[in-house]
Formats: sequence, structure tokens, C-alpha cells
Amino acid sequence: MKDQGPIAKHTISAIVDNEAGVLARVIGLFSGRGYNIESLTVASVDETKARSRITVVTKGTRMVIEQIKAQLDRLVPVHKVADLTIEGSFVSRELALVKVCGEGEMRVEALRIADVFRASVVDSTRTSFVFELTGASDKLNAFIDLMRDLGLVEVARTGGVALSRGKTGL
Amino acid sequence: MKDQGPIAKHTISAIVDNEAGVLARVIGLFSGRGYNIESLTVASVDETKARSRITVVTKGTRMVIEQIKAQLDRLVPVHKVADLTIEGSFVSRELALVKVCGEGEMRVEALRIADVFRASVVDSTRTSFVFELTGASDKLNAFIDLMRDLGLVEVARTGGVALSRGKTGL
Repeated sequence: MKDQGPIAKHTISAIVDNEAGVLARVIGLFSGRGYNIESLTVASVDETKARSRITVVTKGTRMVIEQIKAQLDRLVPVHKVADLTIEGSFVSRELALVKVCGEGEMRVEALRIADVFRASVVDSTRTSFVFELTGASDKLNAFIDLMRDLGLVEVARTGGVALSRGKTGL
Repeated sequence: MKDQGPIAKHTISAIVDNEAGVLARVIGLFSGRGYNIESLTVASVDETKARSRITVVTKGTRMVIEQIKAQLDRLVPVHKVADLTIEGSFVSRELALVKVCGEGEMRVEALRIADVFRASVVDSTRTSFVFELTGASDKLNAFIDLMRDLGLVEVARTGGVALSRGKTGL
């Protein structure tokens, strides 16, 4: 087999027409190759909701990711596509909601750690919190790992979204 | 036609096995009915990345949403599914990255509005900013609308994620 280079994480961003079926076709390009989508987000980018941005975080060799990107580029409802990981410096952020249930010292410790991570409390009962936390995915992982010993109940993460640094758009 | 009730926004949350094809099947349930997915996020919820949470925001009548939910429930890789909008009180949050390019008073005004919305600057050049903003989707819409007159270049939104309020998980 030809050397395809090392497997690395890639953040791929695409602007697509917001029409039925486009998301399924984009996903098909990944799953058709047995490529796992680590996270995916899709949301509209304009007032009229005519266009959406899809952000996919996946792991793969550079060669295969380039093939997927080229195929994405050829899909009719796809206007622009970029592999942000390859094309230069970019900002990536993710949001998590984290529910923790505990009493006494566990509860105090959860709040203490939330403070360190600049997580905010968005819901609370006498024995539970829902924390909101944003940052790089690694930071979210670290916070969630710490909460496992402090009564972690459930997690909802957005997956990463990203924009290139600097003045120009995709 | 039978009265299906008014069209409303629904936030649907599902815990699924993180295997190839499950995302395509979930999306197919919506697009097969011509239902537009307003936003979708998928990201893992555990250390081992064995399970993911899919959050879909869609608009539809209660009757059709219930049918979709029932079909989701029957998919083998789907462990739990909830229509948070119907099942009680929930917390929903979204993250946006917003790139704005401008000089002079426009730049100052963009920073002023960012301050009001508690957006933070995550990248900057002499003539551009990338703002990070979290909150309810309506708040993000309002911020992005204000930035249109101040040199909006591009937007990346995660779409909403949500957890039920209180102690119990999905």
C-alpha cells in the first residue's frame, strides 16, 4: 500500500445550500469510506436560512482527507470547502452542557473546578448543576473527566466549529 | 387532512452508538419526510467515544415530530431519544464564531456591541475580529444581525445543544 502519511485530526468546513438531502450526501462521503466523523455541526449562516455551514472533525491520513475534500467540492449544493487544519491558522471552539449530581463536599468541589474552568451554572437544584463550558475540545475533555468522580449525569457537546484567523472568509 | 396542530420548533436529543451509518439513518428520517433540519450537532458523550449524542432542532407539527421520535426509538443503534420541547423544562445553548472586518468607528462599535452581548475576542488583526458568543439561538441571531452593518465577513454556528433541567438524565 502506498504511504498515505500519518493519521491526524482534520477540521473541515463547508458552505452548502440548505436543502433536503445535502447533509446526508456529505455524511455519505465519510461513512462510505468507513471514516468516522468525530463530530459534526450544521447550522444556517444567513438571515434567510438559504445556506448552512457544516463543520466536520475527523481523523485520517492527509491523502484520504484531500480526496474527501475534492469530492465535497464537486457536490452541487456545496459552495466552498476548506480543510482548515491544512490551510493555515484557525480558531476552533466547542460548547458543552454538563449535568452533575452530588451533595456536600462533592458539590462544593464541582463548583470549585467549574470556577477554574470558567464554566457557568445554567441550571441548579439542591443536589444538581448544569454547567455551560466553552473552549478547545481538549479543555472540555479535561473538565468532563474531572466531573466523572463528582457525580457526572450526562453531557451534551456541540462538536467543534472553526473559522480561519485573519481578515478573509472561507 | 387531519389537524396536526401548529408548527413549532422542537429540540430532539438522542443517544446513539457511535458507528458508521447511524447519523445518515437519523438524518434520513427527517429528510425522507421533507422535514428540514434547522440545526444538528453530533459529538461523543463518553471517554471511549462508544456513544454520541445527536441534537436536532427542527420545525414541525407535534404529530409528525412524535412519529419521527417513535421511528428514532426503533433504530437499533439509538439508545434513548427525547423531544425536550415536549417533555418539560430544558436548557439550550449555542456557540457562534463571528468574523467582522472594519476600521475606525465601525471597529469601535463592533467591540461595544460585543461587550454588551458578552462576546469575547478570540482572534484579531488591525482591521478584523473573530468574536466567540454563546447563549440562546435568538441572542446569537440578534448579535449577528447587528454585525451585518459593521463588516460581517463570516459566521460558524454550532446549532443548539440541550439538557433537561433538574437532576435526572435522558
